[in-house]
Amino acid sequence: MQFPGAHILSVEQFDRADIERIFAVADSMEPYALRRRVTRVLEGAILGNMFFEPSTRTRVSFGCAFNLLGGEVRETTGFKSSAIAKGESLYDTARVLSGYSDVICMRHPEEGSVAEFASASRVPVVNGGDGANEHPSQALLDLYTIQKEVRAKGGSMDSLRIAMIGDLKYGRTVHSLSKLLALYDRVEVALVSPQELAMPEKYVETLRAAGHKVTVSSELSQSISSVDIVYSTRIQEERFASKAEADLYRGRFRLNQAIYTQFCQPNTVIMHPLPRDSRADANELDTDLNQNPNLAIFRQTDNGILVRMALFAMILDVVDQVDKHARDVNWYHNRDLNELG
Amino acid sequence: MQFPGAHILSVEQFDRADIERIFAVADSMEPYALRRRVTRVLEGAILGNMFFEPSTRTRVSFGCAFNLLGGEVRETTGFKSSAIAKGESLYDTARVLSGYSDVICMRHPEEGSVAEFASASRVPVVNGGDGANEHPSQALLDLYTIQKEVRAKGGSMDSLRIAMIGDLKYGRTVHSLSKLLALYDRVEVALVSPQELAMPEKYVETLRAAGHKVTVSSELSQSISSVDIVYSTRIQEERFASKAEADLYRGRFRLNQAIYTQFCQPNTVIMHPLPRDSRADANELDTDLNQNPNLAIFRQTDNGILVRMALFAMILDVVDQVDKHARDVNWYHNRDLNELG
Amino acid sequence: MQFPGAHILSVEQFDRADIERIFAVADSMEPYALRRRVTRVLEGAILGNMFFEPSTRTRVSFGCAFNLLGGEVRETTGFKSSAIAKGESLYDTARVLSGYSDVICMRHPEEGSVAEFASASRVPVVNGGDGANEHPSQALLDLYTIQKEVRAKGGSMDSLRIAMIGDLKYGRTVHSLSKLLALYDRVEVALVSPQELAMPEKYVETLRAAGHKVTVSSELSQSISSVDIVYSTRIQEERFASKAEADLYRGRFRLNQAIYTQFCQPNTVIMHPLPRDSRADANELDTDLNQNPNLAIFRQTDNGILVRMALFAMILDVVDQVDKHARDVNWYHNRDLNELG
Repeated sequence: MQFPGAHILSVEQFDRADIERIFAVADSMEPYALRRRVTRVLEGAILGNMFFEPSTRTRVSFGCAFNLLGGEVRETTGFKSSAIAKGESLYDTARVLSGYSDVICMRHPEEGSVAEFASASRVPVVNGGDGANEHPSQALLDLYTIQKEVRAKGGSMDSLRIAMIGDLKYGRTVHSLSKLLALYDRVEVALVSPQELAMPEKYVETLRAAGHKVTVSSELSQSISSVDIVYSTRIQEERFASKAEADLYRGRFRLNQAIYTQFCQPNTVIMHPLPRDSRADANELDTDLNQNPNLAIFRQTDNGILVRMALFAMILDVVDQVDKHARDVNWYHNRDLNELG
Repeated sequence: MQFPGAHILSVEQFDRADIERIFAVADSMEPYALRRRVTRVLEGAILGNMFFEPSTRTRVSFGCAFNLLGGEVRETTGFKSSAIAKGESLYDTARVLSGYSDVICMRHPEEGSVAEFASASRVPVVNGGDGANEHPSQALLDLYTIQKEVRAKGGSMDSLRIAMIGDLKYGRTVHSLSKLLALYDRVEVALVSPQELAMPEKYVETLRAAGHKVTVSSELSQSISSVDIVYSTRIQEERFASKAEADLYRGRFRLNQAIYTQFCQPNTVIMHPLPRDSRADANELDTDLNQNPNLAIFRQTDNGILVRMALFAMILDVVDQVDKHARDVNWYHNRDLNELG
Repeated sequence: MQFPGAHILSVEQFDRADIERIFAVADSMEPYALRRRVTRVLEGAILGNMFFEPSTRTRVSFGCAFNLLGGEVRETTGFKSSAIAKGESLYDTARVLSGYSDVICMRHPEEGSVAEFASASRVPVVNGGDGANEHPSQALLDLYTIQKEVRAKGGSMDSLRIAMIGDLKYGRTVHSLSKLLALYDRVEVALVSPQELAMPEKYVETLRAAGHKVTVSSELSQSISSVDIVYSTRIQEERFASKAEADLYRGRFRLNQAIYTQFCQPNTVIMHPLPRDSRADANELDTDLNQNPNLAIFRQTDNGILVRMALFAMILDVVDQVDKHARDVNWYHNRDLNELG
């Protein structure tokens, strides 16, 4: 696809070459995200960060990514804009807001709303999540993390083995990830969930049509025993008839250090889209995994900055100019992303 | 008036020469709003964007205008500040906040509150709307749009013919616009509303005292048949005794493409302060007008950026320096303000 | 203490030499806060301004201080982040958010929460207030104001005489101030409150252990008759059994111009942490004091900018570079901090 001026609405826009270009640009953003260098390539540009549904970290991540390229951010965080409450259409909202900024990131609770907004926008729009539908930058950062993690261990995206665990029915991230994995070769996918929360058939089909080996099960221990990546997801209590039933399910799909040690191969990478529910009766990834160096969940959010910087730089066509407008950092920084402060 | 250091509280501050200076500066801001050039003339300056009543687009428009001049924006979006809730006076709030930024834009639900705030502020204050009272930058962008639109068609502000339609009793924008139109010569004003929502007599008097020809009617079709500008406003349901009554009125003052074609002269410009209620049973301007090139409603909000940039540049006395601190844009832009993305 | 890379969590971190270094750096920030000069020393750096409890002025003050050093600010203002509402731990929140910015300012309603957050953060964290516990930048700006005011009158921090008035039991600011005053010599402290709201014994002990003379009383007039500083605090109605009882107490601890003239020595400085309750039946500092040049309450908030700039510059280790990246202001400014606009 052509990136300059493009909307980023769905992972279905990308072919494998597009993905690889995004990831190469993301790699090149690392000196800036690690604060070894600062660039002002987008000085004077404005991101309209329009969150019509709250999501603190996604909003802040997009905003920081734009700031790190030297641009400014104007944003809204309200559930609904006052105008929308007065009956304004998405068409009108888009026509107005796109007169203000150079690119818009939009999150909205309704499926399809961001695409509708984009069709009336006069500047590129990035989908920051539209209900159960799409959240493409999340899917990209997940895939980017998988690639980085498996390569660091000498593996490859082709021949990847991954287990997806938890609520595969409603989990937007595992659906998008499945679509993206279909772009690669010889992937083995273990789908592990309660039967009621199984991966929808269309995504299973997408994976199989790509020639991938897909296994479906409700058994955690076996499924995680021979994979490179365990991708765990949140199981939301409201999906179940009762709290007791929810607790039963959560217990069966919870990963902790003891289970990891007993069943996983060494170096199996643990991922999660976050937030992770850390309450005692609910955590799908136990906090006793926090010291496990293969817990990649915070490397995922760190990678989100790189991926979002890459998308902005590509959409606004400044990839080749980032380094030209750069200098070394002149303030204190000790950013070892794996160390606590 | 002297702009450097001045508060902008009411359209009554301006004489015609002031207006013409603001509009000339607004014209000069176009290369920046269109992203052909970037300036950092206000680099290091801070706008305190204090919205004690929500208004997403006004807030974002002021913030973007300040960013486009190179300044930073700090803001609040809460209905009430936590301090005000604890009984703090506007005097105290103003004394505190004016120690933080270089200029303040304030919106507040109570009439007169912004002037009270300004009298205690140590930096210039721009009224971003104080209840039913004033919203001067909205009035200026309306008038600026009228001037641009009629000039583009070879017309002139003197001898302008305009119809104002809808709720003329409570509509703050038509009151302010009337005051501004009184600064011009030989304007013909058709006031079209249900009798219950007629323009208050004092504004009619203001227009007549300026020598303007004012007609008052409840008949849409005739009133719009020989004007340069149709300025439509929202009719709020809560003004009526019942929904049925509101629907009746709305039906009579609704403009759509068929009515436009039948009654308006070609090139009659359609304006609206937005938001426009696009719900099927409520829209005062039908969405079938969206393809009509004379629908100027989004040019109005675009012009809001220019007018707000002009006000900031004049108040902070940097009009002559904007171009000196400018460079060409180095990122992708394809901002034809009339085209969809 | 070593400032570069340090968390600022409590006033107990500081010894007297630390305080004096902070105040010397704060003094050097004055040309920037007064808008005589602009610096871009922190250009490219990002402050994560994370307010999980609303506090408009503290949030805006921190944000402006960071902007004045040339940095960018990304923030959240919600009571709770959406992630925390889903059961996310402070550990996870900290690990995620500290990947986004260069320094974090955090406010949170729960005591100890900011320290817990900081222990998991990969970047320095400044405590912007954690419940009844600590708000170190407020304590520093209070002490900095005291030093400035007494020095301007030829006095000295050692041998300072101060009265603290009002709710000394629950008032976080007077507790922190007491800890800081213990770092100085020969201070005389008059504690004036209803018995039910007396200063907790441990803070009285801290002051006495430093060799200070402490008097405890419920009598306003005598206590304020021979001091350099009157530090008044808010008495919250909810501390009392009934409104009548609260009114009784407020009446006894209220300071106005008549009482000031009758009992205070000339030049006694009046301070208050703000917000001050200006409602007629509640104001602890009457508005008739507003014209009194010794009312230092707005100089306090002005000084907050200087102190917060100093903390950021020291934590990020750019104190020596601020002037190197500076230039004169090129926009209108008439910032006499004692004059109304």
